[in-house]
Amino acid sequence: MENFSEWFHDISEEVNITDARYPIKGMSIWMPYGFQIRKYTLEILREFLDEECEETLFPLLIPEAELAKEGLHVKGFEDEVYWVTKGGQKDLNECLALRPTSETAMYPMYALWIRSHIDLPMKYYQIVNTFRYETKHTRPLIRVREITTFKEAHTAHATKEEAAEQVETFMEIYKNFFDCLGIPFLICKRPEWDKFPGADYTMAFDTIMPDGKTLQIGTVHNLGTTFAKTFDIQFENKEGEHEYVYQTCAGLSDRVIAALIGLHGDEKGLRLPPVVSPKQITIIPILFKEGKEEVIAKCDELKKLFEARDLRVNIDDRDIRPGKKFYDWELKGTPIKLELGPRDLKNNKTIITRRDTLEKIDLELDDNLLNNVIDVLEDMDEKLYNNAWNNQEDKFKFSDDLEEIPKLIEEGNVVAFNWCGDTECGQEIEEIVDYDILGIYEELDEDATCITGEERANYIALIAKTY
Amino acid sequence: MENFSEWFHDISEEVNITDARYPIKGMSIWMPYGFQIRKYTLEILREFLDEECEETLFPLLIPEAELAKEGLHVKGFEDEVYWVTKGGQKDLNECLALRPTSETAMYPMYALWIRSHIDLPMKYYQIVNTFRYETKHTRPLIRVREITTFKEAHTAHATKEEAAEQVETFMEIYKNFFDCLGIPFLICKRPEWDKFPGADYTMAFDTIMPDGKTLQIGTVHNLGTTFAKTFDIQFENKEGEHEYVYQTCAGLSDRVIAALIGLHGDEKGLRLPPVVSPKQITIIPILFKEGKEEVIAKCDELKKLFEARDLRVNIDDRDIRPGKKFYDWELKGTPIKLELGPRDLKNNKTIITRRDTLEKIDLELDDNLLNNVIDVLEDMDEKLYNNAWNNQEDKFKFSDDLEEIPKLIEEGNVVAFNWCGDTECGQEIEEIVDYDILGIYEELDEDATCITGEERANYIALIAKTY
Repeated sequence: MENFSEWFHDISEEVNITDARYPIKGMSIWMPYGFQIRKYTLEILREFLDEECEETLFPLLIPEAELAKEGLHVKGFEDEVYWVTKGGQKDLNECLALRPTSETAMYPMYALWIRSHIDLPMKYYQIVNTFRYETKHTRPLIRVREITTFKEAHTAHATKEEAAEQVETFMEIYKNFFDCLGIPFLICKRPEWDKFPGADYTMAFDTIMPDGKTLQIGTVHNLGTTFAKTFDIQFENKEGEHEYVYQTCAGLSDRVIAALIGLHGDEKGLRLPPVVSPKQITIIPILFKEGKEEVIAKCDELKKLFEARDLRVNIDDRDIRPGKKFYDWELKGTPIKLELGPRDLKNNKTIITRRDTLEKIDLELDDNLLNNVIDVLEDMDEKLYNNAWNNQEDKFKFSDDLEEIPKLIEEGNVVAFNWCGDTECGQEIEEIVDYDILGIYEELDEDATCITGEERANYIALIAKTY
Repeated sequence: MENFSEWFHDISEEVNITDARYPIKGMSIWMPYGFQIRKYTLEILREFLDEECEETLFPLLIPEAELAKEGLHVKGFEDEVYWVTKGGQKDLNECLALRPTSETAMYPMYALWIRSHIDLPMKYYQIVNTFRYETKHTRPLIRVREITTFKEAHTAHATKEEAAEQVETFMEIYKNFFDCLGIPFLICKRPEWDKFPGADYTMAFDTIMPDGKTLQIGTVHNLGTTFAKTFDIQFENKEGEHEYVYQTCAGLSDRVIAALIGLHGDEKGLRLPPVVSPKQITIIPILFKEGKEEVIAKCDELKKLFEARDLRVNIDDRDIRPGKKFYDWELKGTPIKLELGPRDLKNNKTIITRRDTLEKIDLELDDNLLNNVIDVLEDMDEKLYNNAWNNQEDKFKFSDDLEEIPKLIEEGNVVAFNWCGDTECGQEIEEIVDYDILGIYEELDEDATCITGEERANYIALIAKTY
């Protein structure tokens, strides 16, 4: 993939993922094939989240008075908020914000719902559209003005410790979710100057896209008592005293789909992990006049066989030549293409093509067929996962030379370096290198010196070109 | 249910369906239990729609220039549209509407996508939030400013006949969908003065709520070529000539859930059709010191047994008395409550309580248990359906006396009457009776006279008090 940006744009349009020609900059349409990928991705996400939180749905609009309450928070978003000022032909009494995120929509309600320690912990999530008036260059799924798929979870706890544990739990959920999709990640504690507006600290997941730029694909924030104090969310503890709750929130967006597409794709198109592929097996009948009915009947039979094990299967019976069908489904990234012609049927066999390796495999049309196909799908999951993680490792470099870093980054790497952790020092590094510090990747126990050569290094930090 | 309005409000809050205390009038929160009902309802709807259309997702915001293009349409919505006029701290160059419905968001894209007759029919749908600046009294799920669950399907066809057939197909889908939920309906062709702005004609589904007022729960519109001409949606036919497409659209909203709750509920709370109930079987262990482990083990075993057949089951193991558990799940409308204590276990039996009839049934803990439970669930589906349709029939009256109609309506009925079909005559009837004509219910073949006593009656029309 020589030019990732071009590849990503072309594939999105060619296989019907998004259409960016909508007449508002930064807002695209989810086309049918993309919508299906999104749907299966959300199903997996919901499975994980439903174990931990309850799903809800809050209104889109936030009264200006609520949004403005938390000073640090509103400052972080003031240049990005879309405002509704008119209803019908009248000016509204109060401006209404399109949610950029939902803390200020949800927490006034948390203040109503939480009365006592028995109401805690309270853990809700929602999957909604959110809005940011982006002034930078927009790009479907990556930098958009309508985030169509914003998953946000919001929890409230009785103690600081529980909130910290919740942050860890969300991180575990994200790890498992990304593992399911074969998306590798780097976890950092974001630097002070780049944390979520209003948070005590922010843990972030980044992935390295094929062009070497990192894409933030998930964040978990420990909010401490900042919002609780602003929105007066108090509970009566067991001793009958009133205390502020400790809060966390965690978010994922459309970018997960961008990573899914970008990290696994190749020159021939998408390579979708079976778990999210709209079709997992595409059957391509090879038809001649002779034996046509038998081949069609066998294809139907195989479809039923696979569907009985909850596999998503289609038969491409379009009246076009098989080569074009192969091309189309390779582009769409369907994990297994199964072809069946009259000669195959006679020999009681079929040929399947794996999308990941493009390998062709002869399989007998016997009792083992179903299990053989399932084995291939599982192997594909593993290979896509390993391949993506190997790519990430190749792009992970350590450096102790400030001058070398820009070169390494321009070559498509993320660079780890020893850092003292001081804000002023960090911002100086960003200025010298002219790239962004992702944050603290690891704590350092051994004796080491900050890359600036002065202080003791307490951490390994990462620096990269970011989306 | 003496006071339906009060009942509906109370039940919504008590069982966590919606919370209307959000600080914007007409915008509520879907609470966890309500969200689950909504989720299962949408799953059923998607199953029906996916057979017919492909799901997509269009942006929320519509540029003013697009919304304003279709004159009739914009006139119908101009007092109801919310306008975004600011992004960050800047005024936008062009105002952006929060979609009141998505014709004007989708059809400019249809004009790009449709080139030739082979692109037709084009059938997409989406399930999104839409906005109406309602000035009337708002009420959760029934009259809201944010419709959170707006399903809209939009199709384009090569011929007028195909579009008319599509209208019929959507009506069939709606019938099947409402049948699944046990929601009875009346189908009318809306009168000219009440059709969708821009449509050739509108077919509407109404249901009669317990207070006798009708609630519009679904509409299907034949748009003819009105929007095609406005948005220049043309295709090249087989002869190489350019023609405008014929379009239809069809919509459902949150009101389906309002009907589901309102029509089946009773004084003790919700009575949810098994198909949409978050839990279909709630197991209530009756625990004493003695035999506690055995009862818990058996409850777990039963849960697994039911879940293996894809039933949604929970065990209420809260440390409160069983009576309170019974009360809670009766309120929430869980179809079957299954209780199991040490004595039951000894006698190898269990008692289940049907939510619809409140009947208690002894069942053996034998190999037939699963099928017996499934039979009860199926019978409940049927009983709730029949009960709701019988209630509707009781409220359906015919009258040939204009003066009698207001009295019949105030008693909670919908009234059928003979009508000539003339607009002026219809509006005069509405003025005299002071209620709304729902539309044409049936064509009349036999000789009859319009209720106004002058013209020949061509139709049976319906008139009612509407939501």
